Amino acid sequence: MIEELSRLPGIGAKSAQRLAFYILHMPKEDVRRLSETLTDAREHVRYCKECYTLTDSEVCPICANAKRNHRQIMVVEDSRDLNAYEKTGEYEGVYHVLHGAISPMQGIGPDDIRLKELMQRLQQTDVDEVIIATNSSLEGETTAMYISKLLKPTGILTTRIASGVPVGGDLEYIDEVTLLRALQGRTTL
Amino acid sequence: MIEELSRLPGIGAKSAQRLAFYILHMPKEDVRRLSETLTDAREHVRYCKECYTLTDSEVCPICANAKRNHRQIMVVEDSRDLNAYEKTGEYEGVYHVLHGAISPMQGIGPDDIRLKELMQRLQQTDVDEVIIATNSSLEGETTAMYISKLLKPTGILTTRIASGVPVGGDLEYIDEVTLLRALQGRTTL
Repeated sequence: MIEELSRLPGIGAKSAQRLAFYILHMPKEDVRRLSETLTDAREHVRYCKECYTLTDSEVCPICANAKRNHRQIMVVEDSRDLNAYEKTGEYEGVYHVLHGAISPMQGIGPDDIRLKELMQRLQQTDVDEVIIATNSSLEGETTAMYISKLLKPTGILTTRIASGVPVGGDLEYIDEVTLLRALQGRTTL
Repeated sequence: MIEELSRLPGIGAKSAQRLAFYILHMPKEDVRRLSETLTDAREHVRYCKECYTLTDSEVCPICANAKRNHRQIMVVEDSRDLNAYEKTGEYEGVYHVLHGAISPMQGIGPDDIRLKELMQRLQQTDVDEVIIATNSSLEGETTAMYISKLLKPTGILTTRIASGVPVGGDLEYIDEVTLLRALQGRTTL
């Protein structure tokens, strides 16, 4: 049991031991429920057939929601980024989850992420805008540039979320590359 | 001596004591030089008559540099922010240092910062663009809005550095307000 648990990310030998002893002292019923939840979740989780986020239904609740703007698609690297934007409570469009970013260093190419699925989706549905919200890392930027080139012939408006000074940020403590981006991305008031 | 030193910011009773003993063991010559440096700096430092940054000459080296673009003025809250942008090595315009930001909470109004001086400067010299680079805090944003209103009648192009995801940032770990700003400030690719 300790061996199995210590294979999980962020759980070392000590934590695994602590968890193991805790579980051994839990009521049998609770342990059975925990085990079933894990198996059930793993068995029923799948990719939404529209946006490819992780979900337990054929179409995720966001894609199934008729009140969302299905003509505006935000492209994110993974489901956690989707959750981050959902927490803002202000975005009303839908998403497309790539499940990764292009990274030549790690041998991840355009075919290894859900890009083909995005292109198919854009052919099948009318879309006004694709918002590229990949991370502001080297991989995220590479992916954004790649997608933008890919979408150019379609004529669909392609936008990129802003890079710049985070809200509440004091310039003095912000790295030079971000300051430079904030300057380059300045907008007219 | 301990009392004097402990009045400095970030120096508590213990640090003051440590510093005091260190100084008492320094060679007399070194102590004299340190004291003179402090007095000299304090005595000769003044505001650049163009941009109001702290300097030891009538006009600071940036304003005195003919190679800088004097038709592009970046407005910052203090000299430390100016230094932050200078470190990027890419900005070729000049600056205007406000020495503060409008903060009704702290009783700091438009007359308490170097805004009048900015307006005078804009009347006396031809300027193509004013880049507002105040912090991304409540006070910084308030000041930016105030300046932009003040400049509207002049017709000078007024821009604001971008707010958004810092470079290298993973969306998952970025606060919701910043994510929202990044979305609102998105640009066409």
